[in-house]
Amino acid sequence: MSRYIVIPDSFKGSLSSRRLCTLIAQRIRLREPEAEILSFPVADGGEGSVDCFLSACGGERIAADVHGPYFEEMHAEYGILPDGTAVIEMAACAGLPLVGERLSPSETTTYGVGELILCALRRGCRRILLCLGGSATNDGGAGMAAALGYRFYRRGADGAEETFIPTGGTLSQLERIDAAHADGKLREADFTVMCDVTNPLVGPRGAAAVFAPQKGASPDEIRLLDAGLCRLAAVIRASLGAEIADLPGAGAAGGMGGGAAAFLGAGLCRGIDAVLAQIRFREHLPGTDLVITGEGRIDAQSACGKVVGGVARCAAEYGVPTAALVGEIGEGADILYGEGVSGIFCINRRAVPLDEAMEHTEENVLFAVDNLLRYTAALRRAGGTGKGTSS
Amino acid sequence: MSRYIVIPDSFKGSLSSRRLCTLIAQRIRLREPEAEILSFPVADGGEGSVDCFLSACGGERIAADVHGPYFEEMHAEYGILPDGTAVIEMAACAGLPLVGERLSPSETTTYGVGELILCALRRGCRRILLCLGGSATNDGGAGMAAALGYRFYRRGADGAEETFIPTGGTLSQLERIDAAHADGKLREADFTVMCDVTNPLVGPRGAAAVFAPQKGASPDEIRLLDAGLCRLAAVIRASLGAEIADLPGAGAAGGMGGGAAAFLGAGLCRGIDAVLAQIRFREHLPGTDLVITGEGRIDAQSACGKVVGGVARCAAEYGVPTAALVGEIGEGADILYGEGVSGIFCINRRAVPLDEAMEHTEENVLFAVDNLLRYTAALRRAGGTGKGTSS
Repeated sequence: MSRYIVIPDSFKGSLSSRRLCTLIAQRIRLREPEAEILSFPVADGGEGSVDCFLSACGGERIAADVHGPYFEEMHAEYGILPDGTAVIEMAACAGLPLVGERLSPSETTTYGVGELILCALRRGCRRILLCLGGSATNDGGAGMAAALGYRFYRRGADGAEETFIPTGGTLSQLERIDAAHADGKLREADFTVMCDVTNPLVGPRGAAAVFAPQKGASPDEIRLLDAGLCRLAAVIRASLGAEIADLPGAGAAGGMGGGAAAFLGAGLCRGIDAVLAQIRFREHLPGTDLVITGEGRIDAQSACGKVVGGVARCAAEYGVPTAALVGEIGEGADILYGEGVSGIFCINRRAVPLDEAMEHTEENVLFAVDNLLRYTAALRRAGGTGKGTSS
Repeated sequence: MSRYIVIPDSFKGSLSSRRLCTLIAQRIRLREPEAEILSFPVADGGEGSVDCFLSACGGERIAADVHGPYFEEMHAEYGILPDGTAVIEMAACAGLPLVGERLSPSETTTYGVGELILCALRRGCRRILLCLGGSATNDGGAGMAAALGYRFYRRGADGAEETFIPTGGTLSQLERIDAAHADGKLREADFTVMCDVTNPLVGPRGAAAVFAPQKGASPDEIRLLDAGLCRLAAVIRASLGAEIADLPGAGAAGGMGGGAAAFLGAGLCRGIDAVLAQIRFREHLPGTDLVITGEGRIDAQSACGKVVGGVARCAAEYGVPTAALVGEIGEGADILYGEGVSGIFCINRRAVPLDEAMEHTEENVLFAVDNLLRYTAALRRAGGTGKGTSS
């Protein structure tokens, strides 16, 4: 009896990780009714992470009243897993899809993310996974910190000190941070931030320079945002004694990586590694015949913090082959072999443009899985000697 | 040390079988410098068959002065293999590419094919492989037979019997065939006709109805051509005592299948089976780890007389896995698994239109081969127990 672990990322814009798990498991079942199949829909810590964690681990979805990117009132959800871990996507209340056409990383806030954290802390969660990515903000997590009780000070028009909630555009006014009123449960809680970039907070590879353009910032605005994050790093150093300017990953999600490190004491880790730890992936590997993973497009970046690379690295430790099913094989994808991927199989069966190919994604996945199982079984049968024998 | 047999068809319009063999062998060599690699460029008995036989078996190319599709003088070539077998492509002097825009299956002749056969017989060849396919003719092989000494009779304008060389359009005038003057060496020779269709000579699935349209015939002309082949079958029955009207494959290449059976006593066989017999494919299979084959497009038809199906059927007899690399996976391709194909791998790495994909065929083949070898090796390593082990 064979044992398979099915653990794909989503094919973005086409198939969710959960749907992929269903299709792949169905097709395995059809060929090998007795096979043991473990399915884990996963995400790399970005969009869809809460859904994936809940599918893979169980748990419940919690709704909360929070503030959105422009401080508007809204409902947002996060997950609490059976072991009490809270999983919060910052995109749930500070995400790019929430702002529509109104792109302004100078004005948007992560305040709601702090409110979600507060909700989880009040429900007793003491372990919190914070999923970055897809943010509309560039406030270095200052909004989040304000919601958690941190106080931010600037000089008012009259020269007197006043509190404010900094956004990307007003961070440069920051003079002082006071942590005295921060929620007491913060110190009791363990925060892990999942992010798949290693950019520093500021400078040419920083949050503003690299990610603000896709959030709608003009070149002038980018300079303002970068200066704001510089100011934040300096004030954090002075007021909190933390050093975040050069921290790898501090530049993730508009500086949220750095803010989470400073305000939450969070450790930053590759999204998929946190996911694999949470689902205890390693414990399932002994005795497994084949790991089937995949993502919409595989390329050199897939090695770093993405699902396929993370999955393959673990599987390789246990000598389990990993097959990756993908919609597209980009430049540099062969770097994945070094991470432990055994084979990369493009699901497309015909040379047609992407939009036409995407109409057939499900049937192409089914064909690819079937083909993979057949080839794998044929090699196993030939196995032993590994040689053709006399007829 | 691994042993591979590389035996692809061409990717039509993109890569010759020989070039594919070179690429695949190169990439195997890069990963496994010690591997034993047997390369056989092959064709399914159609266009390119002589080249492939000469590449796979060695031998020499013979040029001859013959007559082309419109009885024009031309040079044409055929091959003589080291064992004395002659390989003749009918397309060499009766092929569609030779007539350009001047499509007229009523007027074209296979006379030159008979001349090539005569040349081979005079050089002492007593085994002749005749490759059908790609013909511009519909003369039922009458032209070929005329070149070999058969005499064809009709009534002249004065009512007296006269000889003529029938073409598709004049076959219906045929009254009698006289074999008395046919070349004596014909009886000493063994003819095998390679064709990959099983159509009968006449009727709705016959040569004229199915294949004449692509040779430029109008509906009226098709009726005339079909009547001509009916007449030929009747006269062959009366004059030679042979029955070809319903012979499977008689309709191949404008009735050349039937003509070869009647005039040459040829056996009709699937092209690839004749190729595999000639290169003694079966003898190489014991001890082989993997057979790598392929073709430009794989579909339900690939099972029948094409390279991939024929190769896989043989390999399966010896328990050797067969991987097929293809440019496109068409409808019904999964029928190939039943023929022994272990896995079908589309080489395209991105969802782009065919013309764009074809610009990258070589690099895509190299990537696909490398990936296949890596996956195969990973499974072999996991082999033995076939299970992941404790790290």
